[in-house]
Amino acid sequence: MTPAAAAPGSGPASPGELFLAEIRDQPAALRRLLAQEAELAAVFELFAARRPLLVRLVGHGSSDAAASYGVYAFGLLPRWTAMRDSISLTVYYDAELDLSTSAVVALSQSGRTPDVVEYVERARARGAATVAVTNDPGSELAAAADVTLPLAAGTEQAVAASKTYLNQLAALALLAGGAAGRDREIVAAIARVAELMEEMLEPLERAVPPIATAFAYVARMYVIGRGIEFATAREIALKLTETCRVAAEPLTATDLAHGPVAALDPLFPVWTIASRDEALPAVIDAAARVRDAGATVVASGNAASEVADAAYVLPVPEPPLPLLAPLLSVVPGQLFAGAVARAKGLDADKPARLTKVTHAR
Amino acid sequence: MTPAAAAPGSGPASPGELFLAEIRDQPAALRRLLAQEAELAAVFELFAARRPLLVRLVGHGSSDAAASYGVYAFGLLPRWTAMRDSISLTVYYDAELDLSTSAVVALSQSGRTPDVVEYVERARARGAATVAVTNDPGSELAAAADVTLPLAAGTEQAVAASKTYLNQLAALALLAGGAAGRDREIVAAIARVAELMEEMLEPLERAVPPIATAFAYVARMYVIGRGIEFATAREIALKLTETCRVAAEPLTATDLAHGPVAALDPLFPVWTIASRDEALPAVIDAAARVRDAGATVVASGNAASEVADAAYVLPVPEPPLPLLAPLLSVVPGQLFAGAVARAKGLDADKPARLTKVTHAR
Repeated sequence: MTPAAAAPGSGPASPGELFLAEIRDQPAALRRLLAQEAELAAVFELFAARRPLLVRLVGHGSSDAAASYGVYAFGLLPRWTAMRDSISLTVYYDAELDLSTSAVVALSQSGRTPDVVEYVERARARGAATVAVTNDPGSELAAAADVTLPLAAGTEQAVAASKTYLNQLAALALLAGGAAGRDREIVAAIARVAELMEEMLEPLERAVPPIATAFAYVARMYVIGRGIEFATAREIALKLTETCRVAAEPLTATDLAHGPVAALDPLFPVWTIASRDEALPAVIDAAARVRDAGATVVASGNAASEVADAAYVLPVPEPPLPLLAPLLSVVPGQLFAGAVARAKGLDADKPARLTKVTHAR
Repeated sequence: MTPAAAAPGSGPASPGELFLAEIRDQPAALRRLLAQEAELAAVFELFAARRPLLVRLVGHGSSDAAASYGVYAFGLLPRWTAMRDSISLTVYYDAELDLSTSAVVALSQSGRTPDVVEYVERARARGAATVAVTNDPGSELAAAADVTLPLAAGTEQAVAASKTYLNQLAALALLAGGAAGRDREIVAAIARVAELMEEMLEPLERAVPPIATAFAYVARMYVIGRGIEFATAREIALKLTETCRVAAEPLTATDLAHGPVAALDPLFPVWTIASRDEALPAVIDAAARVRDAGATVVASGNAASEVADAAYVLPVPEPPLPLLAPLLSVVPGQLFAGAVARAKGLDADKPARLTKVTHAR
């Protein structure tokens, strides 16, 4: 894998090279985000001035997966209620909701997702405090919002997001930490996460390709998480879908038992994300149900070793705070998607029918 | 199909017989719900006394699909913000959110889903106004809540929900209508929906089986809706997954463009729900993208005829209010799931590894 993953720029990229280089850039991307001190402070000031009763998170694709994490970051740090808001209710239906006590956190890598921009314009006009979290501080989204936190992930060339997703998670943890008056603690913890990620990348890159080979003919998968790791399940499922053409659906551990377990069979493998926190018992139970159905289990996360009878185990280190586990848990899934794409002869950098900026509504 | 669908009770049910009988009972089930006048009035009084700033909807499986509809019913009728709340944040993580200005609407057919019951107990202790919407007014969930609206759907024997899901949608429309002071209008409109459903059932039952036969070997599908019809997409995908063992994933029309469109091919069909409202153009665009990818399109909903180049069209009538479209749109999907299960030799009444009351957490 090493030659293909050389730094891009010295000629046309070989398939999946950009995606892999961007996965490897993630520790550095986290550090660039942590350096955005003045921009972070501006958001904390807005929160302090407005004291929102409700945080409305909006985004599509990977940004929407990150929004799932924001629900927990705001719920567990400042104990604020946060929700993935319905974009269509405001943008298509023009519902006249009272937004005067709301803060909006709008997530878009490009800052050009049309209905996210329009949502922010409408929400701001209705009195919401609006924050843009985007990799392009010169974008329309940034112009539409009261304040902007740049993701500072660096240019992302692969169509499939990696480091911008990671920095969205970190940005949400930082914003929630600031709202709770715990920003210094969160900054230090994310700096430690960057170190842990640096150390784990090389061994993971060696561990993943042999497993990926066994998945070259898989057509469908479930990806199971719960609580803070449901965001990771959504993001890994999306990576598998867009780069490997696997129909991979994210489910909470509990969702699985309410129907989808009926569809499992030995050719329908399940990826589980098991991290050490209050939701772990539910994930372990779900993995046992998957095994009972005869399906293959891949266990990832920092408590992967607690999943009984997993065919494949891809553990990651424990972060200094359990809330930051998803920043590390997503990486095995990113590498796995890249390796499965390679095994299938697909180009993870340029999936069929997708473009880096999605203008579709 | 007629002999198999005779009223149950005269001996062991043949495969799928209970599910089909319960689909056919839906117009009557709606009328039984409309007769719960005193119970509805009790919820309206609670809303009037407490004037919630936020409605928190909770449920799993079909009940969670119905909750997606509740977001629009409350958003469009009383213009209240409603969200599908995170059960795990309260039940597993014990997040200390301020719920004193919230109303909870908890959805569970059986009233015995453990973490929904526990969520309501905790939310009520934290000051939320709590409403149970359940088919069993003697259940633990009903005991835990301030007030209960019985679904009055009648006993549901098939493991796959049909009439309880339908009545959950209707219950949410009624509650939202009451909060907006428009309850009489909504009651009358639902009564009309029951008539329309009665008229459409027989022709739909004839139209569906020949289409289902063509899907006997399908392993994966997407089900596309947007706005108020996203709930329908979620429910139809769940029916296909649990009764037919198809990996069917629900997506909004916009989600499709943010990744999953890359996975489509001619053996990966897509079911679209096209209803005449503000979200229709997005669904029509999504269907065009599906066709460009070479995939087969099934068009349903009251604007099914506007989806270009659909291989199969299963239209339903327009309801008196656009908001009630999902009550009719779900029926072709229910019948289709039952017919595909039959074509595959599966028993829609008793899917593998599922039970009527899900105790898993």
